[in-house]
Amino acid sequence: MTWTLARRAERLEPSAIREILKLTERPGVISLAGGLPAAEGFPVEALAEASAKVLRDNPREALQYAASEGYAPLREWVAAETGRQGLQAEASQVLITAGSQQGLDLVGKLLVDPGSRVAVEAPTYLGALQAFAPYEAEFVAVEGDAEGPLADALDAARGARFVYLLPNFQNPSGRCLSAARRHAIADKAAAIGLPIVEDNPYGELWYDQPPPPPIAARAGTEAIYLGSFSKVLAPGLRLGYVVAPKALYPKLLQAKQAADLHTPSLNQRIVHEVVKDGFLERHVPTVRARYRLQRDAMRAALERHMPPGCRWNVPAGGMFFWVELPTELDSTALLPKAVAAGVAYVPGAPFFAGGGHAHTMRLSFVTVTPERIEAGVIALARVLQEALS
Amino acid sequence: MTWTLARRAERLEPSAIREILKLTERPGVISLAGGLPAAEGFPVEALAEASAKVLRDNPREALQYAASEGYAPLREWVAAETGRQGLQAEASQVLITAGSQQGLDLVGKLLVDPGSRVAVEAPTYLGALQAFAPYEAEFVAVEGDAEGPLADALDAARGARFVYLLPNFQNPSGRCLSAARRHAIADKAAAIGLPIVEDNPYGELWYDQPPPPPIAARAGTEAIYLGSFSKVLAPGLRLGYVVAPKALYPKLLQAKQAADLHTPSLNQRIVHEVVKDGFLERHVPTVRARYRLQRDAMRAALERHMPPGCRWNVPAGGMFFWVELPTELDSTALLPKAVAAGVAYVPGAPFFAGGGHAHTMRLSFVTVTPERIEAGVIALARVLQEALS
Repeated sequence: MTWTLARRAERLEPSAIREILKLTERPGVISLAGGLPAAEGFPVEALAEASAKVLRDNPREALQYAASEGYAPLREWVAAETGRQGLQAEASQVLITAGSQQGLDLVGKLLVDPGSRVAVEAPTYLGALQAFAPYEAEFVAVEGDAEGPLADALDAARGARFVYLLPNFQNPSGRCLSAARRHAIADKAAAIGLPIVEDNPYGELWYDQPPPPPIAARAGTEAIYLGSFSKVLAPGLRLGYVVAPKALYPKLLQAKQAADLHTPSLNQRIVHEVVKDGFLERHVPTVRARYRLQRDAMRAALERHMPPGCRWNVPAGGMFFWVELPTELDSTALLPKAVAAGVAYVPGAPFFAGGGHAHTMRLSFVTVTPERIEAGVIALARVLQEALS
Repeated sequence: MTWTLARRAERLEPSAIREILKLTERPGVISLAGGLPAAEGFPVEALAEASAKVLRDNPREALQYAASEGYAPLREWVAAETGRQGLQAEASQVLITAGSQQGLDLVGKLLVDPGSRVAVEAPTYLGALQAFAPYEAEFVAVEGDAEGPLADALDAARGARFVYLLPNFQNPSGRCLSAARRHAIADKAAAIGLPIVEDNPYGELWYDQPPPPPIAARAGTEAIYLGSFSKVLAPGLRLGYVVAPKALYPKLLQAKQAADLHTPSLNQRIVHEVVKDGFLERHVPTVRARYRLQRDAMRAALERHMPPGCRWNVPAGGMFFWVELPTELDSTALLPKAVAAGVAYVPGAPFFAGGGHAHTMRLSFVTVTPERIEAGVIALARVLQEALS
C-alpha cells in the first residue's frame, strides 16, 4: 500500500515538550519541565464520591451517547461561572470539550485556511501552536513587554484570522496583563476588526491577587473564550470548554461532532457533581496555598543560586518562571547536560512561532516539593555556571 | 469583530441524524432512528466497581496528564485482542482515541488534502463522511451488492488516498462481507496500491455466527484498523482505538496530541480494569442475546406489517435493518409524518456520498423493546400505506 500524507501532516512535528517529558521520567531527575499539576492536590475523595454517585444514580445516562454540546447542567454552570468573571454568555454558547486543547484544535479547524495569518504572543503556548499549525496557519508574532502583548503591536496583525491571547499567568512566561492593557487590547482589536481567541487555563491559580476580568468581558460576546477544569480539578479528566459567539456556535458544534461526537458523559457528570455546590471555592484555595509555597521556594532558590547574568520574572500566578540566560547560552544545547546533572526544564525556543530566543527556558514550580525545587535549581545553576566559565 | 471561516467549514453541515435524534426525544415517539445501544445492557456494576477501584488504588495516575498514545496496559490488551482476530499488530501500533469517531477524524486530518479522492461504500457510515468531509475530501462511491463492495469496483478508486470499509454488519446497511470477498478486496487493493481504512465497531455483535477475520488480517500490517468499546461496553465512555501501520504511527500520534493531548486516563483505566480478565467473554454474549431477540422481533414485525413493494435485508449482526421502499416514496419527506404517527427512523439518502436513494431508510432494533419495535413498525407501515394509496 502507498499511503500519501496530507500536506498539513508536514506541520505535525514531534513535540519538544513531549520528548522532554520522556527524559524527565528517568528516575533521579528533578523535573522543572512538564506543567504537570501536583497530583497530591487532586481532590481524589470528592471525585471518587461523585463518580460513585453518578454511577449509582444515573448510570445509563452517564454511559450512553449524549449531546455534542455537552451536559446541560455543566454548560449552565460554565455560563454562570464565566458570568461572574464578567462575560455575558448564555449556556447555549458553551461547548464542553476534551480539555481546552480540543477547543484550540476546533478553533483552528473552523477558522484557519492554509496560509491564514494567526497572531500569537511571543512567546506563546506551545500547544496552541501545535493545534493551529496543522491547519497551515502562518503565525504573526505580536510584540510585548513584561506584562504581555502591546495594544499598538496588534496593528501588525491587521487582517489576521484572529489573535490568540493568554492573559493570565501565561504559559510559558508567567506574565499577566493589567486591566488597563486588557482594555487597550480589546479596544484596539475592535478598532481594527481583529477577532480575539482568549485562553484562560490558569486564571484561578493566583497567589497574590486575582487577575483582572478577561479581555472577552470587555470585548462583549464577540470573543472566543476557552477554559479548563485541568488546573482546578485534575487534567486526566480531559474537560474544558469553549464559549463562542452565537454566530460561530453552530459550525463549532458540527466540528466537535465530527471530531468525537461528544465529550465523555461520565466525566462531565462527575465534574458537575463536584463543582455544582461551590466545592471549588473551598478546594482552589488549597491549590493556591500549595503552589504559592512552591513559587516562593523557586523564587528564593533562583535568587540564591543562579549565576550572574540570568534574569527571571516572579509570576503572580500560574505554574511557570521564565528565565533569560546570558545570550551566549543555548538552553536546548544545555538540556542533555542538565538532565545528566539531575534536572530538567523546557527550552524556550519552541514557544516562539518564529524561532530564536535560544537563551530562554521555562521552569515549572508545581510538580515537585519546595525541597526538590531548591535541589533542582542548584543542579541547574551548576550546569549554567560551568557553561559560562 | 469580523470572523472569517475556513473554507473547510463549508463542509461542516448540520447532521441529519442529529436533527432527527432531537425529534425522537419527544415523548411518545418510538425511536427506530438513533443507533443508541440498549442502556439496560450496560455493565453498570462492573464499571462502577472498576471506577471505585481505579480511584482507590491509582487515583493520582488516573487523574494526571498521561501519554498521548494511551494507557500502556490497554494498548497491550488491544494488540492481543486484535491479534486474536488475525491482525499482527504490536502494542506500539495502537493509539487509544475518544471513540472510533476520533480515529476517523485523525485519519482525515492525516491523509486528506483538499480535493483528495476518498473511496467509500454506497451507502457508508455517515459519521465517516462527516469526519472526512471537512478536510475537503472528494468522495468516490464503490459499487456493491447485498454483501458489500465488489472487489473489481475498486478500480474506480485507483489513486484515491484510501478506501474506507466497514465489513461487519455495516452501518447503515447491516450487510456483512464474506471471507471470499474480503480476500478479493484485500488482494485487489494490494494490486492497485489502494490503502485500506477498516472500521469495525460492530464485529462482536453477531447473532448467527461470528464474522470472518478483518480485511486488515489479509492485508498484513499495512491497513489502518479502527475499533471501539462503545458497542461492547458503553458509548458514553468515548473509548476507541486505531491500529496503524508503523510508518504512519508517529504522525498519527502527533495529530492526536494536537487534538486533545490524550484520551482521559480515568476512562482508559476503568475500561482496562473491566476487560483485563476476560469480562467481555461473559458480557458480550448477554448483549448478543438481547439484540438477537430484538432483531428477530423487527424481522417478524416487518414481515407481518410492511406494505407490498418494500424490501429489507435481515442483518446477521450489528444494529440495523436497511429498508428499500417503492421508489416513488421519499423517506426524508415522509419523516415528519412518521414522527407525528409516533415512530422515527433515519432516511437513507445522507448515507450516500453522492446523494440520491431517497427511497431508503435505516431502522435500528437495539434501542427499544421487542414490543415497542412491533408498535413502531406498525405505525411506520401505516404511514407508508397511506403514502402509497
